[in-house]
Amino acid sequence: MTGDRSQARDAIHAGDNGIARAFDLLAADHPDAAARVKSAFGAFPSGVAALCAVVDGVKVGMVASSFSVGVSFDPPMVMFSVQDSSTTWPVLKQAERIGISILGSAHDAACYQLSSRKGDRFAGLDVQELDSGAIFVHDAAVWLECVIRSEIPAGDHHVVVLEVTSLRVAEGQEPLVYHGTRFRQLRAVS
Amino acid sequence: MTGDRSQARDAIHAGDNGIARAFDLLAADHPDAAARVKSAFGAFPSGVAALCAVVDGVKVGMVASSFSVGVSFDPPMVMFSVQDSSTTWPVLKQAERIGISILGSAHDAACYQLSSRKGDRFAGLDVQELDSGAIFVHDAAVWLECVIRSEIPAGDHHVVVLEVTSLRVAEGQEPLVYHGTRFRQLRAVS
Repeated sequence: MTGDRSQARDAIHAGDNGIARAFDLLAADHPDAAARVKSAFGAFPSGVAALCAVVDGVKVGMVASSFSVGVSFDPPMVMFSVQDSSTTWPVLKQAERIGISILGSAHDAACYQLSSRKGDRFAGLDVQELDSGAIFVHDAAVWLECVIRSEIPAGDHHVVVLEVTSLRVAEGQEPLVYHGTRFRQLRAVS
Repeated sequence: MTGDRSQARDAIHAGDNGIARAFDLLAADHPDAAARVKSAFGAFPSGVAALCAVVDGVKVGMVASSFSVGVSFDPPMVMFSVQDSSTTWPVLKQAERIGISILGSAHDAACYQLSSRKGDRFAGLDVQELDSGAIFVHDAAVWLECVIRSEIPAGDHHVVVLEVTSLRVAEGQEPLVYHGTRFRQLRAVS
């Protein structure tokens, strides 16, 4: 691996590879790469998912990063990745069922609140608690009641795969989109 | 698991759980659920990633489903899921490096072509091949040169985690967004 990486870096800096240099590919382990990695990841647009449940009588919630659906269809599965340093996930994962809300276009403030480090993440938030312990955010585009199926280490995060046990789609509810450090809405192109 | 699922289904059909019934949660293993699952997954908006490389002198490409970035930052990692029935992935995974292009807003036709079952997926497509074997699509928002790190079974798919070895961000290039079976573009809300 080290050998491969050195080769890629050399291609950029020594200029011994005209194609790579012309297109300015930066080796991911270059000292200046961290900001570029952040910018590259920010350029990928994605919906926003809140994960919430009651654990020991207390509401616990977080906003998932790198969330995606359609991981499997039979059975239906979704996934996300969580930082190893998260203090919320070790608590939330104890829930019997986790409620995943794909946030709606008016949920930009809710998203910040549910990922804030200070204060009550649920204060003033309109949520629905099910008997299973799953908590859903009102006016979300989709509700997915899930159970954890696997958790795999990946660098400084873990990838968590969840199976959807029940669901609800709110027809006509536009989703929130996060892109380039901003919230965005959608317009049709085709 | 069977017990939990039956309980969820009963909540919908026997109506013994007023909350669940009122919000029309459908058990994911209900015979009618497949279309609803598809609709729920389609409601999650996401960028579109093409995975391309040269294998044994032949260009191989596919469009990733459930792709997401920021799986890890140190080292940088991305992931996607691939159907167990895919015939392209077993070939593409043999590449030394895989080029991932986060498609741009004008790439709707390219996306269909790169996922078509018939014909040359690269015909007329403006691509850039690197010495590593990674192939990138021109006018993409981001290029990520990647190496496979792990592959984990998840239902009828596998989750593939890749490490980014080098990258390039095209400033100002808007990404394509797939949502609800359509391509979309973005507009700012905040």
